[in-house]
Amino acid sequence: MPTYSAPIRDFQFLMHDVLKLQNQNLPGYADLDREFTAAVLEAADKLASDMLVPLNKVGDEQGCTLKDGVVHTPDGFKEAFDAMKAGGWTALDADPEYGGQGIPYLLAIATNEIFTAANMAFSMYQGLTHGAYSAIHTHGTPEQKKTYLPKMVSCDWTGTMNLTEPHCGTDLGLLRTRAEPQDDGSYLLTGQKIFISSGDHDLAENVIHLVLAKAPGGGEGTKGISLFIVPKFLVNEDGSLGERNAVSVGSLEEKMGIHGNATCVMNYDGARGWLLGDLHKGMRAMFTMMNEARLGVAMQGYACADAAYQNAVIYAKDRLQGRAATGVVNPAGAADPLIVHPDIRRSLMDQKAFIEGGRALVMWGAHLMDRSHAGDEDADGLISLLTPVAKGFLTDKGFESTVMAQQVFGGHGYIEEHGMSQYVRDARIAMIYEGANGVQALDLVARKLPQDGGRQMMAFFERIKAFCKKHGDNDAMAEDFIAPLKAASKDLQTAAMYFMERGMKNPNDALAGSHDFLHLFGHVTLGYIWSRICLTAHHALENGTGDTEFYQTKLATGRYYMSRALPMTATHLARIQSGSRHVMALPADAF
Amino acid sequence: MPTYSAPIRDFQFLMHDVLKLQNQNLPGYADLDREFTAAVLEAADKLASDMLVPLNKVGDEQGCTLKDGVVHTPDGFKEAFDAMKAGGWTALDADPEYGGQGIPYLLAIATNEIFTAANMAFSMYQGLTHGAYSAIHTHGTPEQKKTYLPKMVSCDWTGTMNLTEPHCGTDLGLLRTRAEPQDDGSYLLTGQKIFISSGDHDLAENVIHLVLAKAPGGGEGTKGISLFIVPKFLVNEDGSLGERNAVSVGSLEEKMGIHGNATCVMNYDGARGWLLGDLHKGMRAMFTMMNEARLGVAMQGYACADAAYQNAVIYAKDRLQGRAATGVVNPAGAADPLIVHPDIRRSLMDQKAFIEGGRALVMWGAHLMDRSHAGDEDADGLISLLTPVAKGFLTDKGFESTVMAQQVFGGHGYIEEHGMSQYVRDARIAMIYEGANGVQALDLVARKLPQDGGRQMMAFFERIKAFCKKHGDNDAMAEDFIAPLKAASKDLQTAAMYFMERGMKNPNDALAGSHDFLHLFGHVTLGYIWSRICLTAHHALENGTGDTEFYQTKLATGRYYMSRALPMTATHLARIQSGSRHVMALPADAF
Repeated sequence: MPTYSAPIRDFQFLMHDVLKLQNQNLPGYADLDREFTAAVLEAADKLASDMLVPLNKVGDEQGCTLKDGVVHTPDGFKEAFDAMKAGGWTALDADPEYGGQGIPYLLAIATNEIFTAANMAFSMYQGLTHGAYSAIHTHGTPEQKKTYLPKMVSCDWTGTMNLTEPHCGTDLGLLRTRAEPQDDGSYLLTGQKIFISSGDHDLAENVIHLVLAKAPGGGEGTKGISLFIVPKFLVNEDGSLGERNAVSVGSLEEKMGIHGNATCVMNYDGARGWLLGDLHKGMRAMFTMMNEARLGVAMQGYACADAAYQNAVIYAKDRLQGRAATGVVNPAGAADPLIVHPDIRRSLMDQKAFIEGGRALVMWGAHLMDRSHAGDEDADGLISLLTPVAKGFLTDKGFESTVMAQQVFGGHGYIEEHGMSQYVRDARIAMIYEGANGVQALDLVARKLPQDGGRQMMAFFERIKAFCKKHGDNDAMAEDFIAPLKAASKDLQTAAMYFMERGMKNPNDALAGSHDFLHLFGHVTLGYIWSRICLTAHHALENGTGDTEFYQTKLATGRYYMSRALPMTATHLARIQSGSRHVMALPADAF
Repeated sequence: MPTYSAPIRDFQFLMHDVLKLQNQNLPGYADLDREFTAAVLEAADKLASDMLVPLNKVGDEQGCTLKDGVVHTPDGFKEAFDAMKAGGWTALDADPEYGGQGIPYLLAIATNEIFTAANMAFSMYQGLTHGAYSAIHTHGTPEQKKTYLPKMVSCDWTGTMNLTEPHCGTDLGLLRTRAEPQDDGSYLLTGQKIFISSGDHDLAENVIHLVLAKAPGGGEGTKGISLFIVPKFLVNEDGSLGERNAVSVGSLEEKMGIHGNATCVMNYDGARGWLLGDLHKGMRAMFTMMNEARLGVAMQGYACADAAYQNAVIYAKDRLQGRAATGVVNPAGAADPLIVHPDIRRSLMDQKAFIEGGRALVMWGAHLMDRSHAGDEDADGLISLLTPVAKGFLTDKGFESTVMAQQVFGGHGYIEEHGMSQYVRDARIAMIYEGANGVQALDLVARKLPQDGGRQMMAFFERIKAFCKKHGDNDAMAEDFIAPLKAASKDLQTAAMYFMERGMKNPNDALAGSHDFLHLFGHVTLGYIWSRICLTAHHALENGTGDTEFYQTKLATGRYYMSRALPMTATHLARIQSGSRHVMALPADAF
């Protein structure tokens, strides 16, 4: 049975020491003292350990079932969901006006990471609800907010996002679901949506679907799309549940992983819905959900990897195999533990350096979102630039990391018994949903990079430059951190320049390098984050604040990332600079 | 339903044009004219298309079942296995003295690739049998050969390899299965073996287990290990089946993939066995099977990737999404097909260049094995060096390639319906079995690299150097192929030198880079192979032999590999040169 323990020390280090939240004048931050964050994180860890971790394999094995139109979640999910609601976890960072606790996203995402690492499929029921909550909170009428938000904050009602149709996903301009306006101001929706996570289940009284559909008069493509609130049960004036809406589950998808989450085909057969936000401006409203959701998916990438890593470490310390090349370590045993072997270390260090760097990136991103919500435009611009990087890079690498963790187990990783296969299968979805990673790369190169005349990209480079300048003379930083960060950042600048120059003449020259650019950007960002982490650790050691081992481990892990991961930027740059010539050389028929 | 079509044109190009088999004076090669190879490959393709491809998903969904001690394979497997036997496919490259057809391995591995791509789990029943056949053929007594080989060649009896035990896999010195000598010269074996592929099933009358066990007097560790033949049913003097041996299936493993293959826990409870080869020399006999098997597993890596790739291509041509950045391609449709998008092309080209390069490497490897069997010591040395590279590199990259193919499908790749998840799940095992890839890297760096004073490695470098020298002035080759090959080969030499110098002082400096060295070596090898392929294609175009499109596609794909894959060598070298300092920096407790 796999185990998982929340990295509370790391969360606190990032929040209090690296991001120094106590110095930030932001709503709710004053309440986040060390005692409070520890209490919240420990309570989340307890819920995760007691209820969610043991259900992870149950969910994988049982999956969800559809009987007579009703979706049943795996044994124990209902009890765990009730416990999550009772603990107030669903309301953590929601608006107090609707029953939320108004806690900053910075802390909320840490608890979400704990729940995700413990049981990704389970945590999605609440995760999707939060996305739908945000969309209604931002775009809903006062009446809509009053009707839906309190119940969604408590997760008595859960939420979904309905975008994809059988013939279209990324290209939503092609969608066919129709919304016919009615005299009473409502709409009747007809069409089929697929891949609807948490689409239906037995955990909540009602499911509030947010559905993209075309209402008359909106024109072609995405311009004609509006967003609708379509509840599973209609809501009476007094807030009680009324009749069943004409929305039903067509089938459950058989998937590679996240079996505990009900992925539904949803059929809308004249289902009654209400416009959310402006008519024909549905894409904008949907992106409110998507941007937040993308950072959440980025988190899933390394959260799953962390759970897998923790189990790989246990196995590597326990399993005896061979002898250390430098001399016997475990003379009392028949062999030394796996962890003595350099190639196992290489794998564990790759995982550890990625996971901790990924966590720091997402925590920083959550902090930027807190700033953005408080009106900080620079923070808003930066997180807008970093979101596709975080989503694409951390989910690609997160999946790779689970594969590495599985590999530590040898044959025992391939059988389902130890749960390593499940981490790999679960993590795989994060590269696909909320915009497949190719779409993240496209978003980055075609939209975010040139946005505002490249202002956000420039600001990012300036930030790194300033950091390097400030700490370039610090002996503790210069060689191990600043030098490789400078080199990697230069590769990124060269790549950005290449796109600027070539993209005008031939957009394919930029697009052919989009995947590599996203990864190059990801490495530079993690290199920067690791440099900040290690600067903080260095200061703490200088100041003699104790916990020496923790800070020295950070420094060693950071040095590993800088020396062994950052060299990838040169390869990405070389691939980018080869342009589209070889990528596009063949006619389609030649494949 | 996924489809698959055998790359017959590519096989023939590799065999007849690149490897020029008609010029080689090797047993059986004279019979391999183009007409014959085409006939064999087409017949294999027909069997694969008619029977194996449709059973691939059936096998994945049904898996194998154990009822009252009897293993049942999925519906249709027996019929397909009978068809494979009837077609003589199991006897292809076996010794005619025992009913085989004596066809060179070069052609046999091509048919194996077809069967693997069509249905990997199914093809393993025959694959394992062939490995066991080889071990008995090499190490068996005349009597043993007479008793077992004809039935194994026909696959009336199948074979297995029993190495792993619950507490030990790679480190076989720890194994506990005991063999007690009996007065009649036989042994009684007691112990438990796990992860036994094709361990038991209903496809054949008998299963011949080759089992590693410790017989008295052999000393500690691997020195005390012997190899035994343990048939499921004892064989009477007249060749008929006698009583059931005391070997039974404890359970079937639940696995991530290859569900159609029965992976068994085998219990030996005083099972009667006979020594194969010399007493206490079991490891050597087992390696006869392993080396051949490793090239076969290398093939599985890209074979699975090819099947996934072919389906990704179909999807990319069919699925409409967005518009080409350089202008509408499909004005009659609502959108352009996926394949117009550079990032999709990038993915497909990565897959295509890897798969075709991987195939060329394995075909070359099979040819070297044919030479080695005919007594060519240089070929034997070279394939011994290349085997861990092919196994490790092609299975790592093969898995990545299936993930890329799955990604082309977006959400449709994650659901089981389209079969892409299965390719990923099936391909994953190839990185683990027949020696996990970390063990391949260790074998390469610690054994093969320094072997005979580095003679094989030197010979490899000389080969590349001679090739570069010979074709460096050829304008068609110089810039696109020879220059990047030279640069990559230089990186490999620098890495090898680093290991030689540092490995003496601190073996961890070499071992920490073993994974990167294997991949660096893999890229150089594929770069060399692609250069040979493209030289051949260039000559064909010069000679005006027709089929211009095929050769031009080869050139474009080769240029893609050289320009976009080979830059990885610099990153691998940088990682290697960072040594073990950062890899081994942390105490085990810090993980």
